[in-house]
Amino acid sequence: MQKMFYPQSVAVVGASNSDTNMGRNIIQNLVNWGYEGEVCPVNPRGEDVLGLKGYASLSEIGRPIDLVVAFVPAKVVPGVMDECAALGVTRMAVPSGGFSEYGESGDELTRLVAAKAVEYGIRFVGPNGLTIINTENGLCLPFLTLKKREPGHISVVSQSGGVGLSLMMFLDNAAATFNKFISVGNKVSMDELDFLEYLGDDPGTRVICLFLESVVRGRRFGEVASRIDKPILIYKANTTEAGARTAASHTAALANDDAVVEGMFRQAGIIRVRSIRRLVDMARAFELPPIRGNRIAVVSQAGGYTVLCADEAYRRGFSFPALAPAFLDGMKEYVRSDVIRMGNPLDLGDIHSTDEILYALDKVLGQRDIDGVALVLLRRSDARYDGAYARMQRPPYADLQGLMSKHHKPISMCLLTQSAFLREVRSEVGYPIFEIPEDAVEALGVLRDHYSRRPA
Amino acid sequence: MQKMFYPQSVAVVGASNSDTNMGRNIIQNLVNWGYEGEVCPVNPRGEDVLGLKGYASLSEIGRPIDLVVAFVPAKVVPGVMDECAALGVTRMAVPSGGFSEYGESGDELTRLVAAKAVEYGIRFVGPNGLTIINTENGLCLPFLTLKKREPGHISVVSQSGGVGLSLMMFLDNAAATFNKFISVGNKVSMDELDFLEYLGDDPGTRVICLFLESVVRGRRFGEVASRIDKPILIYKANTTEAGARTAASHTAALANDDAVVEGMFRQAGIIRVRSIRRLVDMARAFELPPIRGNRIAVVSQAGGYTVLCADEAYRRGFSFPALAPAFLDGMKEYVRSDVIRMGNPLDLGDIHSTDEILYALDKVLGQRDIDGVALVLLRRSDARYDGAYARMQRPPYADLQGLMSKHHKPISMCLLTQSAFLREVRSEVGYPIFEIPEDAVEALGVLRDHYSRRPA
Repeated sequence: MQKMFYPQSVAVVGASNSDTNMGRNIIQNLVNWGYEGEVCPVNPRGEDVLGLKGYASLSEIGRPIDLVVAFVPAKVVPGVMDECAALGVTRMAVPSGGFSEYGESGDELTRLVAAKAVEYGIRFVGPNGLTIINTENGLCLPFLTLKKREPGHISVVSQSGGVGLSLMMFLDNAAATFNKFISVGNKVSMDELDFLEYLGDDPGTRVICLFLESVVRGRRFGEVASRIDKPILIYKANTTEAGARTAASHTAALANDDAVVEGMFRQAGIIRVRSIRRLVDMARAFELPPIRGNRIAVVSQAGGYTVLCADEAYRRGFSFPALAPAFLDGMKEYVRSDVIRMGNPLDLGDIHSTDEILYALDKVLGQRDIDGVALVLLRRSDARYDGAYARMQRPPYADLQGLMSKHHKPISMCLLTQSAFLREVRSEVGYPIFEIPEDAVEALGVLRDHYSRRPA
Repeated sequence: MQKMFYPQSVAVVGASNSDTNMGRNIIQNLVNWGYEGEVCPVNPRGEDVLGLKGYASLSEIGRPIDLVVAFVPAKVVPGVMDECAALGVTRMAVPSGGFSEYGESGDELTRLVAAKAVEYGIRFVGPNGLTIINTENGLCLPFLTLKKREPGHISVVSQSGGVGLSLMMFLDNAAATFNKFISVGNKVSMDELDFLEYLGDDPGTRVICLFLESVVRGRRFGEVASRIDKPILIYKANTTEAGARTAASHTAALANDDAVVEGMFRQAGIIRVRSIRRLVDMARAFELPPIRGNRIAVVSQAGGYTVLCADEAYRRGFSFPALAPAFLDGMKEYVRSDVIRMGNPLDLGDIHSTDEILYALDKVLGQRDIDGVALVLLRRSDARYDGAYARMQRPPYADLQGLMSKHHKPISMCLLTQSAFLREVRSEVGYPIFEIPEDAVEALGVLRDHYSRRPA
């Protein structure tokens, strides 16, 4: 696997210099992402691609190649495998479609490449996918040009290239990035389980996200997942009859009995989420400090949010210890009118000053029987704060990080605001910010479920 | 009610010129929003506010006032009501908190103002809320300064001011606005039912959204909702024990048995949604043409999305008629490789040209037994499209509107892209754009459920 993600040299078979050649995009990506190893384009005429020396065949390169990308029509792939075998290449990436997802003739090709892989001792990712990206060394192999991302600590495995791309964009929106990205495609030689095992040991990966249309080797999958201490989040689609028909023609995925899948996930401590956007949101929860118990406080700036949070926290089985009376009495000093009844959930009501909010959070987090806080703030980027209000409303975001470090407890924050402003704040802080109050509570639930099985 | 939303004159009791006076924000809003009627600030010293002539009392104004805003401490509200009665004022807005949400002493005050309202024939919105906004005449009464919004066709009723504000922001993010906004607060004199009835007849309102922590007068609520032809969407919080305790101290809301609420909603054809963000998303679905049946096609640019859509469509009971063989044969011409098996759901695979996508949509919508389309497009704002690709990838958004007008059928689109680009496209088109594939299908389900009861 190390050769797959950290090759010293990559040959791209099927990359020419024509501006409609999609293989050229792979070369472009390797250049743009600053891939550190050697890149060898291979095309029939041996033409150079984007200034890199081209070759007419793999054997013409004359030096050992760690990884061969075969971006050629499906029926040409077996021939490229023969060449690889002759040159001692054992790792390949095959983005090309036209295999099992295309019916009978594809099935035959699939059997052929599977047999050749076994015969030659070749392992490959694909076919019919975007293959892999490693942000740590700039190995970016998708055949679509992608903007370079810096290494994050979430790694993504997707059975659909398209869904994989959208996960990348949801990460962009969350001002986050990934560490390794794998689009497994039809999983003929390597499947999600191979990658799950690898990512489980990969030092750059702290959280593992998977989008799957089918689970292969279910029992073994559960065993491997159980042994991995890192959080594993999965969105499993293809749970209905219609989904199954569609998935079969897409990545040749067979449906699984969802109850069986659910049971296996639960037993293995896998976090199951219910939308692709949520996969990214909940993966980011693990940027918060661990939560060590089931007792939380809800702190918000409006009563309505506390109701939403309380509903969600109740559904997730959290308890709300009473807040210390001395603290609540102290808070009353700050309240301008008699509007708010103090308790847990704590509705800050007309307490708008950042210092007072931070004071309250410090006290609440300091309370022994509070394990974490769900915080809901409202910042209207269209409001003008003048004079006294401007000072009161200084940004609290850096201080929240400080409070979490001080108390070793999570503050899971929802910031209700316009999306441009949300993006701005997210890019400034090192913790996740959620878009709706319920998500902030769900994140605490995800942390609790994970750390109760795998104490930090 | 007309006087409430279209008053010729408004007095704001409790608005002074001090920069920490929150009543002044109300005057500021009326100025910024270009409210067309007369505005009279009232404060003890009779000082002018933001250049508008001030008065020491309501009686000092000496002219009839249509609507009085009483932004004064709770215990002063009964006195303002006495003054209103003496002057023949019958409509009031009471933002002030400190009533039932604050326990026993507040309960007493509540009974007093309720009795006075009956005695004097005064109707008022509040207490303990942001009261109302009418975008049509600039009547913006919240005590927080708000950026002016142009009139939209969605009206919002919220039992929580804070949730109401966040709905406004979700609308901003969707590049949409509202027509009328009501934060009902403690609902002592007027409740959601009064506003629901009014909005049902209001020409500016085409879709009604409600956030509720409790439903009062349940049977009557169902009757009124049944008679309204406009779509009514509700997010009802306070469905758990913990939510109930929290809601009681927030807007003095009593919990309802959720099964009873659910039954009433269903019988009345109310669309129930499960998050505040979804309230906005699904309200926007009604900017699409009506759907007249249960048969849809799914068209997408990646197989993974078609699986997600198929799962969701199956759960919502949609059927997928076969697409015409002649059309599918024609499409095969456009396919670059043999990647895709054509069917419904239709995975466009490597068909990236806008013209070809639009051609496919035109044919699919033209098919008699297709009632609507869920479309999933991917646009990576970080991709560079050069030469041939740039021409192929021209924006399809205006053409989609044209196709819907031509066929009188909805195209419910999910656009997977970075949020800044999404916001840009949303601001250019007159139909909703969804963020995840499942939402696009859900929107078709919401349309179908509505129009099957209330044919367009």
